[in-house]
Amino acid sequence: MPKIKFTVITLFQEALEPYLNASMMWKATDKGITEFDFVNLRDFGLGPHKSVDDTPYGGGDGMLLRCEPVFAAIESVKAKDPTAKVIIPTPVGKVWNQETAKGFAEIGGHYIILCPHYEGYDERILSIVDYKISLGNYVLTGGELPALIIIDSIVRLLPGVLGGEQSAVIESFSDGDNLEYPQYTKPADFRGMKVPEILLSGNHGEIDKWREEHSGHAN
Amino acid sequence: MPKIKFTVITLFQEALEPYLNASMMWKATDKGITEFDFVNLRDFGLGPHKSVDDTPYGGGDGMLLRCEPVFAAIESVKAKDPTAKVIIPTPVGKVWNQETAKGFAEIGGHYIILCPHYEGYDERILSIVDYKISLGNYVLTGGELPALIIIDSIVRLLPGVLGGEQSAVIESFSDGDNLEYPQYTKPADFRGMKVPEILLSGNHGEIDKWREEHSGHAN
Repeated sequence: MPKIKFTVITLFQEALEPYLNASMMWKATDKGITEFDFVNLRDFGLGPHKSVDDTPYGGGDGMLLRCEPVFAAIESVKAKDPTAKVIIPTPVGKVWNQETAKGFAEIGGHYIILCPHYEGYDERILSIVDYKISLGNYVLTGGELPALIIIDSIVRLLPGVLGGEQSAVIESFSDGDNLEYPQYTKPADFRGMKVPEILLSGNHGEIDKWREEHSGHAN
Repeated sequence: MPKIKFTVITLFQEALEPYLNASMMWKATDKGITEFDFVNLRDFGLGPHKSVDDTPYGGGDGMLLRCEPVFAAIESVKAKDPTAKVIIPTPVGKVWNQETAKGFAEIGGHYIILCPHYEGYDERILSIVDYKISLGNYVLTGGELPALIIIDSIVRLLPGVLGGEQSAVIESFSDGDNLEYPQYTKPADFRGMKVPEILLSGNHGEIDKWREEHSGHAN
């Protein structure tokens, strides 16, 4: 059993899958640490056109995801694994942060991520949802990128994924807004821009002090 | 000339391109409203292994993006279009929101988005950057998903992309945190969960009042 499994319910599997097959995410799958699965919402669509949405009651623009296909898709996953929990990315959800990502990474389990339509969803869908998650105060065409962000930020924290490369970046958010210090690599002089001398000194006490003084340099 | 152009500098073009070729993003490209281009950072790597990163001065885990390949990649784009501006997704940037997305959509232009390494980048790279943007308080494997979020949230606001479907969702963030009201579509009764009667009434004054009362239902 993988430490954590994600089943993504989407109309755009072909847009998402390449990201999960690339780089770090693939490494995590290959090692059996995580597992990705997809459910095509269209398979649960209604009528000859396999429709998944309809117009809003009370008027308004846009098409809303209907309950029937969404419930059927989620239930098809839960039929095989009743322990699976449901996540929906939505502007009215709890704001995603590093602490929450850590929590999911520690607990593990099987998460069904429903990627809603850019125009919205029937409110009753929330009755089958365990976690409402907001990625920030901006609107996207759909829930696909939020789904990838949730997955990526969790998977990279799983033991064995980053391996020996557990970089300082990981720690930089562990206290909330405690941001990273500036980092430098070769060359020591690039077009006249020089690496701070102290970092070349080999004096680790002084280096630590400098880094502490230069942390959290947001804007 | 498209209204807005994005050139993405990345090591993982194959993970990003399918998203931009799908759905709404493709529609915007097809109509000539936007244009996407990619630059493979590896093409500007150093030495026989086309290396793009190195260890941090002063010690620490992880590999940092080096200045030389990044400057060369950016300059290769600017040589063809000196007006192009550079965006870097970074935890120390300005937090991305709907207002900022609107600003970019209105102004248009050519934006080079540099996708940094998950482990970090040489601080001097910021000297060639015009916009530092943070997507939120979480850490990802790289800047690829932030790049897609920036692109998606801007492109969908361009005139002609969503067409007649300029849904209520677009308005829902225009005043900052003024969130969406609950929405419902058919069927009126789903497994005993009923659409609020008022929304079926056809009384638009009452419907507007109900929606106002039920806005901003975060968490």
